[in-house]
Amino acid sequence: MSNTNNPTWIHVPEDSDFPIQNIPFGIFKTAHLKPRIGTRIGDTVLDLTVLHKNDFFKAWSLDPSVFENSYLNAFISQGKSITNAIRNQIIQLFSEDAVERTLLQNLEGLTYAADEVEMLLPVQIGDYTDFYSSIEHATNVGKMFRDPNNALLPNWRHIPVGYHGRASSIVVSGTAIHRPKGQILPKDAEQPIFSQSRLMDFELEMGYIIGKTTALGSSVSVEKASEYVFGMCIFNDLTARDIQKWEYVPLGPFLGKNFGSVISPWIVTMEALETFKINGPKQEPEVLPYLQFEGAQNFDIQLEVYMQPQGAQPSRICQSNHKYLYWNIPQQLAHHTVNGCNINVGDLYASGTISGPDESSFGSLLELSWSGQKELKLQDGNTRKFIEDYDTVIMKAYAEANGIRIGFGSCNTQILPAL
Amino acid sequence: MSNTNNPTWIHVPEDSDFPIQNIPFGIFKTAHLKPRIGTRIGDTVLDLTVLHKNDFFKAWSLDPSVFENSYLNAFISQGKSITNAIRNQIIQLFSEDAVERTLLQNLEGLTYAADEVEMLLPVQIGDYTDFYSSIEHATNVGKMFRDPNNALLPNWRHIPVGYHGRASSIVVSGTAIHRPKGQILPKDAEQPIFSQSRLMDFELEMGYIIGKTTALGSSVSVEKASEYVFGMCIFNDLTARDIQKWEYVPLGPFLGKNFGSVISPWIVTMEALETFKINGPKQEPEVLPYLQFEGAQNFDIQLEVYMQPQGAQPSRICQSNHKYLYWNIPQQLAHHTVNGCNINVGDLYASGTISGPDESSFGSLLELSWSGQKELKLQDGNTRKFIEDYDTVIMKAYAEANGIRIGFGSCNTQILPAL
Repeated sequence: MSNTNNPTWIHVPEDSDFPIQNIPFGIFKTAHLKPRIGTRIGDTVLDLTVLHKNDFFKAWSLDPSVFENSYLNAFISQGKSITNAIRNQIIQLFSEDAVERTLLQNLEGLTYAADEVEMLLPVQIGDYTDFYSSIEHATNVGKMFRDPNNALLPNWRHIPVGYHGRASSIVVSGTAIHRPKGQILPKDAEQPIFSQSRLMDFELEMGYIIGKTTALGSSVSVEKASEYVFGMCIFNDLTARDIQKWEYVPLGPFLGKNFGSVISPWIVTMEALETFKINGPKQEPEVLPYLQFEGAQNFDIQLEVYMQPQGAQPSRICQSNHKYLYWNIPQQLAHHTVNGCNINVGDLYASGTISGPDESSFGSLLELSWSGQKELKLQDGNTRKFIEDYDTVIMKAYAEANGIRIGFGSCNTQILPAL
Repeated sequence: MSNTNNPTWIHVPEDSDFPIQNIPFGIFKTAHLKPRIGTRIGDTVLDLTVLHKNDFFKAWSLDPSVFENSYLNAFISQGKSITNAIRNQIIQLFSEDAVERTLLQNLEGLTYAADEVEMLLPVQIGDYTDFYSSIEHATNVGKMFRDPNNALLPNWRHIPVGYHGRASSIVVSGTAIHRPKGQILPKDAEQPIFSQSRLMDFELEMGYIIGKTTALGSSVSVEKASEYVFGMCIFNDLTARDIQKWEYVPLGPFLGKNFGSVISPWIVTMEALETFKINGPKQEPEVLPYLQFEGAQNFDIQLEVYMQPQGAQPSRICQSNHKYLYWNIPQQLAHHTVNGCNINVGDLYASGTISGPDESSFGSLLELSWSGQKELKLQDGNTRKFIEDYDTVIMKAYAEANGIRIGFGSCNTQILPAL
């Protein structure tokens, strides 16, 4: 049904996340090629260094190192006027009726099958901040970890609560992560023990990548925020619940999170997502003026989580949507910078777990198993409360309307035994 | 009295922080010179690119870009075997009886007066973590913000508590910072207001810079930790107490801190500080095995804070010492990496506010004014509870024994009015 408009001369399978309307950006390499920027149409990865070398981007006089690079940062730093123009140029070049078609079909090294390239971490992440912007998630966690009758803390409806996370341990989809070890306080014990985590969890999140740098002391308003966002990705904020529970008061998450977080390899531009904007939940009480916004600022992006035990088929265990977020991206950015905190190209900001109103939309095992009180049944007969060794967590995200599907591919993480 | 041993042919004023036994590393520039690595002896800054160009470091075959660089990271990445050898070479070259003396005295562009160069942020900071390792500070804060009878939280004596901070807003001494704005909850109010911070504070801390990178999944043991630490600096963890108080539950400090933090420009090597090691406080109860250590792991580094209102002389308002820290650097690093979190050259880890046992050693205005309940009297007749606009906070740190003083210079920050 999808992707029937604006056809391209590159084959796009039905229900592909990557029609010609998407044109995301990522970094890939092969056994013979250094890291470079690519885009993807259908199951075909296009090498942008080849397009650049053959003068298809000559209007912008860019240095070859912008495209032959281990990260997207130099490309993003060119600014939206250039990155959008290049994206539009790619859309035009690969359209069904493009006059350059024969020329491009004969260009050596332009195309690769998606499964013959290795996708790398797309961005050199300067700072990473994780928000906590789903009211359902914050309420669920508050019920379980704190007070069921006062689950939401007093500041939650006033502030897009967030915290700084670890940038060094953010890896790209497909990178396996070892179960972390650390201090946990067993139930009813008075002294902590050293142990591997017994309560390994995922958190279903979306991230966005900063596209424009600010100076220390300046702020980004809600109205201007969209100028500062390059694109989005899926984000798996892996969490060791037992380590987190013992450490997080009073200074927040630390070793329960910083052993590894995972992003999807293709950064989908905000321009590709523009038509999927949708209203978010009503905010009550009214927020302070610097957080007030106009128009639809959430996105109708469908989110799915699959659990795949070793050797088994993946079972879908969660269906959520970006639209459930209480706090939107312009509000998060306006809040983050209202005190003068500077932001840089390549910073990553994540949403926090995106849970929806019903149980099947909860974005973490903590919530899905209600802190381990109930078992999730998988299709293959397995059951899960938390992640077991060799399980792979698969997250998917896509927006779909009017026959066009703009997707993110997937964000896959296998958990290996503790070292 | 100080610095009478191992004289150098460069003039070193009495009580200088920079005798020939120090040889710290920093980045400087002038109106005519690009950023480059320097060291400092007395009030003289030495340009290491000139020493390199003239083959004084030829034993190590380093690329010129290691020294002509905006950051120390490439230099630190060479490893301690090289950076220590270069430091020792500098000590030898500038000794009183060095055979190279005449040659060096005639080298053009080798020396600058310290007050004619501009010191820059010395390190490109990847990740920044702030610990909370002073038991006196944690107890004082707990008494004021939480429960006076249970000031120390249950995990505090088991875990070197820490949190991730913002790297982008760390600036070098001398950079003025504007008073931040944000949400605060006025006393007895039910709704927050938007306001400039009324409770601007400093936190007296020491930072250390990581000298060796690890891979995700690996851990640094207490025994091996010293191999991973390049050197130390003074760190002023500016804090807006009113913003912090309203935002920090449950995910920790965020906008109350990330508007700006300040480090001193000279990174003093761990080798220069080695002889000042001293035992820290006894840890009770006994810590878990991965945190157990041998020998003296604190440092006898004297710390001072001065408050200087505009147009007035600085008044000393705090005298503390690094030795008061309950948790030491090897324990902090072992804890930070025990879950597999990777560390990188250039990461900054700060101690948390270093308060001592008596009131004059408290390392923040929050503690010195006991949350604004008492006024600090300054020498010039001014009084302070928190930082006022145009005040400059000056932090100093030095270790002194046997006639040798190894110092850090100072870390100065003027607070400007909110924008």
